[in-house]
Amino acid sequence: MELLSELRSRIEIADGLAALAQAQDAHDWKVVAGFFLPNATYTHPGGTLVGVDAIVDRIVRALDRLDASQHLVGSIVTRLDEEGAASVAHFQALHVRVGTVGGDLYTIGGSYADRWVQTDDGWRIASRTQTYQWREGNRDVIAAPSE
Amino acid sequence: MELLSELRSRIEIADGLAALAQAQDAHDWKVVAGFFLPNATYTHPGGTLVGVDAIVDRIVRALDRLDASQHLVGSIVTRLDEEGAASVAHFQALHVRVGTVGGDLYTIGGSYADRWVQTDDGWRIASRTQTYQWREGNRDVIAAPSE
Amino acid sequence: MELLSELRSRIEIADGLAALAQAQDAHDWKVVAGFFLPNATYTHPGGTLVGVDAIVDRIVRALDRLDASQHLVGSIVTRLDEEGAASVAHFQALHVRVGTVGGDLYTIGGSYADRWVQTDDGWRIASRTQTYQWREGNRDVIAAPSE
Repeated sequence: MELLSELRSRIEIADGLAALAQAQDAHDWKVVAGFFLPNATYTHPGGTLVGVDAIVDRIVRALDRLDASQHLVGSIVTRLDEEGAASVAHFQALHVRVGTVGGDLYTIGGSYADRWVQTDDGWRIASRTQTYQWREGNRDVIAAPSE
Repeated sequence: MELLSELRSRIEIADGLAALAQAQDAHDWKVVAGFFLPNATYTHPGGTLVGVDAIVDRIVRALDRLDASQHLVGSIVTRLDEEGAASVAHFQALHVRVGTVGGDLYTIGGSYADRWVQTDDGWRIASRTQTYQWREGNRDVIAAPSE
Repeated sequence: MELLSELRSRIEIADGLAALAQAQDAHDWKVVAGFFLPNATYTHPGGTLVGVDAIVDRIVRALDRLDASQHLVGSIVTRLDEEGAASVAHFQALHVRVGTVGGDLYTIGGSYADRWVQTDDGWRIASRTQTYQWREGNRDVIAAPSE
């Protein structure tokens, strides 16, 4: 039944957005990688990454040395179309590194605009565009370690 | 099928709450207006607005001069009844105006309690009651410009 | 129909997480109690509570003397299985006590990992495990009053 299938897809995509966010926070990089198609693209304010390896590598470098993070996802809009689905969602990404001079916490608020395609293993992201709306706290929390 | 129709309605209303929030942040006032019935009411701590024009006018005045905002919506509860539907949701409204003396960011946390009715064009808000639970940051970010 | 029933369950559990959060903020302790099975367990960083009375008692003691709170729930993941369902969700718990020396606001960000079972009255929590990912603001807001 078409409507039932549509509702399932919308629930699964919203669930996927949440599960991806939680996997990032749990440093479960295998699960993170599984959400992206092999040739997925990831556009962020600094440029565009191509391919799941480059995407996961950037996420690992951003989050791996933190003590904790929380990628809270809300305001989820989903739309099915002929090629798959599109979603837009708000996120608040809290980053924690204990003992950082100037404060332990840095938050980025923004949006994920995603293209999804259905595979035999579930819905996967073909492209993600991440935009930032606000920032708060101590940016040094996410600064790369000096070499 | 009644249950299927109910689930669709609940998903569409949650989606509508998110799409309305995103349209506010994108300054897409036409989309914002489209979510309210012509004779909708909007009750906030300062009083009650009547009619979509008054409602959108207030939203435009609050958000138009900001550099960015994020109305993150979560904790969504939906209930269908004979006249339509009711929803209650939490929001965090982040307001950004760069260069404001005292800080660029002001946040309001609160709830939307909405009455929805189904129209040929989808679910629309008949009444919204907005309450505030907390505030943080520099209130001057949302202060009206002096004339 | 099995899929339809699954989608309903997932929507009802997400709705339940939100309704429980809102009932906590509204100090509607009867509704809060109704979400837990009589023999439910509640594990938090300080230990494990057993039974709905002990659980509600702790929630009342934490929230009753506050001027306001907001338990915003997002990033909801739900999974059905043979015994019921599991959910994991992010929360941001804002606590407000006006006039607290050092600031009126204290926020805890974390996750709820819940086991749900279906009863004749709807989905109920059999166990909740609450973990914390970050904290911000003035901890004295939630400090117990000195006797």
